[in-house]
Amino acid sequence: MLSLGRCVAIQTATVKRAARVLTVACTSSMATDPAKKRVLIVGGVAGGASCAARLRRLDEQAEITIFERGPYVSFANCGLPYFVGDVIKEQSSLLVANAAKFNKWFDVVVKESTEVVSVDRVAKTVKTKNLNSGEEDVYSYDYLVLSPGGNAIRPPLPGADLPGIFTVKTIPDANAIKSWINEKDAKTAVVVGGGFIGLEMVENLVHRGLKCSLVEMLPQVMPPYDPEVVEPVHERLRAVGVDLHLGDGVAGFEATPGGALLVKTQSGKAHGADLVVLAIGVRPETILARQSGLELGSRGGIRVDEQMRTSDPAIFAVGDAVEVKDFVTGEQTLIPLAGPANRQGRIVANVITGNEPGRFRGSQGTSVVGLFGLTLAATGASEKSLKRLGRDFRKVYLHINNHAGYYPGAKQIDIKLLFDPKDGRVLGMQAVGEEGVEKRVDVVAMAIQKGGTVFDLEEAELCYAPQYGSAKDPVNMVGMVAANVMRGQHPLTSWDELNLQELVSDPGTVLVDVREPSELEKVGKVEGAINMPLSSLRQQLSKLQDKDKKYYVYCQVGLRGYVATRQFLQRGFDAVNVSGGFKSFLQQMPERHAKL
Amino acid sequence: MLSLGRCVAIQTATVKRAARVLTVACTSSMATDPAKKRVLIVGGVAGGASCAARLRRLDEQAEITIFERGPYVSFANCGLPYFVGDVIKEQSSLLVANAAKFNKWFDVVVKESTEVVSVDRVAKTVKTKNLNSGEEDVYSYDYLVLSPGGNAIRPPLPGADLPGIFTVKTIPDANAIKSWINEKDAKTAVVVGGGFIGLEMVENLVHRGLKCSLVEMLPQVMPPYDPEVVEPVHERLRAVGVDLHLGDGVAGFEATPGGALLVKTQSGKAHGADLVVLAIGVRPETILARQSGLELGSRGGIRVDEQMRTSDPAIFAVGDAVEVKDFVTGEQTLIPLAGPANRQGRIVANVITGNEPGRFRGSQGTSVVGLFGLTLAATGASEKSLKRLGRDFRKVYLHINNHAGYYPGAKQIDIKLLFDPKDGRVLGMQAVGEEGVEKRVDVVAMAIQKGGTVFDLEEAELCYAPQYGSAKDPVNMVGMVAANVMRGQHPLTSWDELNLQELVSDPGTVLVDVREPSELEKVGKVEGAINMPLSSLRQQLSKLQDKDKKYYVYCQVGLRGYVATRQFLQRGFDAVNVSGGFKSFLQQMPERHAKL
Repeated sequence: MLSLGRCVAIQTATVKRAARVLTVACTSSMATDPAKKRVLIVGGVAGGASCAARLRRLDEQAEITIFERGPYVSFANCGLPYFVGDVIKEQSSLLVANAAKFNKWFDVVVKESTEVVSVDRVAKTVKTKNLNSGEEDVYSYDYLVLSPGGNAIRPPLPGADLPGIFTVKTIPDANAIKSWINEKDAKTAVVVGGGFIGLEMVENLVHRGLKCSLVEMLPQVMPPYDPEVVEPVHERLRAVGVDLHLGDGVAGFEATPGGALLVKTQSGKAHGADLVVLAIGVRPETILARQSGLELGSRGGIRVDEQMRTSDPAIFAVGDAVEVKDFVTGEQTLIPLAGPANRQGRIVANVITGNEPGRFRGSQGTSVVGLFGLTLAATGASEKSLKRLGRDFRKVYLHINNHAGYYPGAKQIDIKLLFDPKDGRVLGMQAVGEEGVEKRVDVVAMAIQKGGTVFDLEEAELCYAPQYGSAKDPVNMVGMVAANVMRGQHPLTSWDELNLQELVSDPGTVLVDVREPSELEKVGKVEGAINMPLSSLRQQLSKLQDKDKKYYVYCQVGLRGYVATRQFLQRGFDAVNVSGGFKSFLQQMPERHAKL
Repeated sequence: MLSLGRCVAIQTATVKRAARVLTVACTSSMATDPAKKRVLIVGGVAGGASCAARLRRLDEQAEITIFERGPYVSFANCGLPYFVGDVIKEQSSLLVANAAKFNKWFDVVVKESTEVVSVDRVAKTVKTKNLNSGEEDVYSYDYLVLSPGGNAIRPPLPGADLPGIFTVKTIPDANAIKSWINEKDAKTAVVVGGGFIGLEMVENLVHRGLKCSLVEMLPQVMPPYDPEVVEPVHERLRAVGVDLHLGDGVAGFEATPGGALLVKTQSGKAHGADLVVLAIGVRPETILARQSGLELGSRGGIRVDEQMRTSDPAIFAVGDAVEVKDFVTGEQTLIPLAGPANRQGRIVANVITGNEPGRFRGSQGTSVVGLFGLTLAATGASEKSLKRLGRDFRKVYLHINNHAGYYPGAKQIDIKLLFDPKDGRVLGMQAVGEEGVEKRVDVVAMAIQKGGTVFDLEEAELCYAPQYGSAKDPVNMVGMVAANVMRGQHPLTSWDELNLQELVSDPGTVLVDVREPSELEKVGKVEGAINMPLSSLRQQLSKLQDKDKKYYVYCQVGLRGYVATRQFLQRGFDAVNVSGGFKSFLQQMPERHAKL
């Protein structure tokens, strides 16, 4: 390898090619200003693109080159399912910025369809390969930024490479699916994996008129969420005709003589389809990092510090390929989301240009997915993650209208809030419903970011007009419930903490349904509960003698259960409200409900 | 006046009536437990109703009575315009809770159509009058809670009491308007006052098919907002055919021989209509407080401490009638909004029952109004309030899509953010647009509540999927712009800080439009600006010599202006970006635009 000052020699390229590369990589810097920073960025989507743009705004002199393995830099990968579904009609819509714009606006050189195949950390050079021509080049750097993203996982299962089995990570992936559907006149599809991309693919394939099956190994879709929270998603998927197969992993794939595909599952089932989409997740792309000897973290992502520096101080890494700290729990985690990637890219640009870098404060895992009219969103920790870490927490459920009930069109939001019983600090919120869901999650995301407590939610001052919210917004209401728990004014339990069979058969405990008899008839009740309607509870309590018993109180959504519990308590009875009432019962114990 | 123990005698009522009153007011407490707290609440909407419900949940023994002057307790006054507009069809929808529910759920006695006419603070009694029967009663209290609300202002102008001139504060008010429209077959209306209620009334009258004029004394609608922020509202009102008369106060009203009304203005105009709605604001209802010798504040509201105690420790006051602290500026203010009223009512219940009361932290004035498809929302301080107080502040404007532009249906939101140049603390945000407006205001409301800075907005982690937001949410973007200003990376000015005529004629300053020539042709430009498109700016800058001049840079919405400003600066030119670009020019200088 021949070194030309701080610039770069070429291995396989011709001399003409070399001259061009020199120009590209060093943009006339050699003679004029050897102090110009040469920054190479591997991967031109989200984190890499953000880094490049901010770098240029902070340093007009730097020489910035982006290598993008795919054919398009800075494309909107979050839009791919909607492009498949023809919701986004034009491929050009997905191109957030193209190479020409990067060049004109930011004087950034973009090398598309170009893979960085190796890094020489001592010489501070990378070797690249043009995936169309096969040409190889070498570029030198002062700083190298790795933003390679993640790879869609293709499981090592029999038949996983059969034609008609797709992943969804790039524009070519999406085009391949669209072509296959059109050419084969596909009528049915199996989507494997019920995460973000899997659900969005299901929605979009159904939108295109395909009959869809969804196969998910876990007993729930959306694994980062708690199972009861996603129960309304299960219901909605079934309601729109999706064949939902939960708790059943894929064993392999077969092609049928008729040209269709068979997805065989571990339980022995076989689901036929004209098309299979694999959406079982992404794995951090770490090949280059590993080959270069950079440290990886415990979760398999590239290890970085708070300024996104890898174990080599001249090399940074951002986006789906890195491990970050969970902002709430402090544990190392992988968060393949665009927002954090962009923030990380900007921090790297600050560091490289010597500006106050800030630090990546970790990720809250704030996320949202929409499907079939439902919105599911969350921020912070889930119950399952808190349990895994052995953390102390309390939780409340709330089912509440998105806006004032007296204004037409109010829709119910199901909310789960997790908080620290020590000080009331909000640990996480998950919510699902048709409208106003992600708004409340965003407010709570900001509360979590600022170390807010349930008392802060209680007294938040949010927008209220009847078409937008309520005088007591859902955020206030869930805060009030939790704050009352914190103040010891509202003894609360949840269905999953109860052994219903024992509770009902134990003479020392009573399950009390405080709804009106007409409601029980209409929507059902929990077996073994006695009915003491709130509207006449005082009269009944004045006659009730059993002060030794423990009363588990529930209503439809939790509010009347709270009011009733207060009456029990103040009349000397031992009582506790079951959070979220009958509505939560249905979501937490759907299999029991089926039996009712 | 005859006193019966801690209970109450009767002035004009019969003995039978007295017996009933005794039962009502003292609910069998006399013989059993003289320690039972007797709480009287004046006013049964929002703050009063919240207080009563929480009181009961905290104290099963207290004797709680609500006196409501109107015929309905706890009605949804925020729904009245929509009831007039037939958006809310049934009057019953407006009754959030009725007297029977208060009684059954909360054992609270509600006396509707009953006015409290005087307070004897020494005897701790109130005298009431039934507005239907004229009957007077006396009730004693341990604690008195004043929640009388505000009165719709009816200005002392000639003809202000003519038939057909209405205010909108109660259900009877709304019914009177509806009857008038139906009976007179009203086709035209004049709404006086462009605040929340005025705008909502305009929308709803138009919705009913009436041709509407809006007369507002100030040169803008929505007085708490800054004028440029509401310019899109002016545009929208005109676009839907509302006759908008700004900067012209009403001088008086006349009835025409034909049965119509004439609204005469100070400028000498006369607007005819079949119906007039007065919506010029509410005034704290303080008659009872003043008669009782309670202290009022400088703004004319009842003075209270952080636990809502008046100058008499046995008397509390909440809601529209009290003065509160502005949470951001610290000044005394009147905030006639339901959310703060509810929070205050709860605090009073905590105090009375001896629970940890918390404190009313002041109000942020978070507000929202929707009209004709637009949403206008704000939280915190406005520029005009900061200027009035002589506070130091910086501001940025942003015009940005509510969600990813590549997903169909994105709508622009116009945002104005105010922050403290000392530490970046967020002081206020106002926004207007068709979708996703109040969501961003709510997030910033939480940031303000927690003392957040523009750096917090910059790195907020909010929900992103393409139909909901962007990887860099509008909240992040406005935070980034402001944070770059704070870091000295983004010199920023605004149109109102410039003297355009001077700037353009001064040889030492240059106004630079960095948009592409095709855009200038399409949407216009600022007179006197020279065009240096961003796409070829580097080439032009390399030839530009005038390093002594000052360059004022603008684009369409501000982003390219920022990118261009960075290029100017780093090449040694003195440059500043004009916040919000040409879009803000149009909103801040609509009269100039008309001339272009």
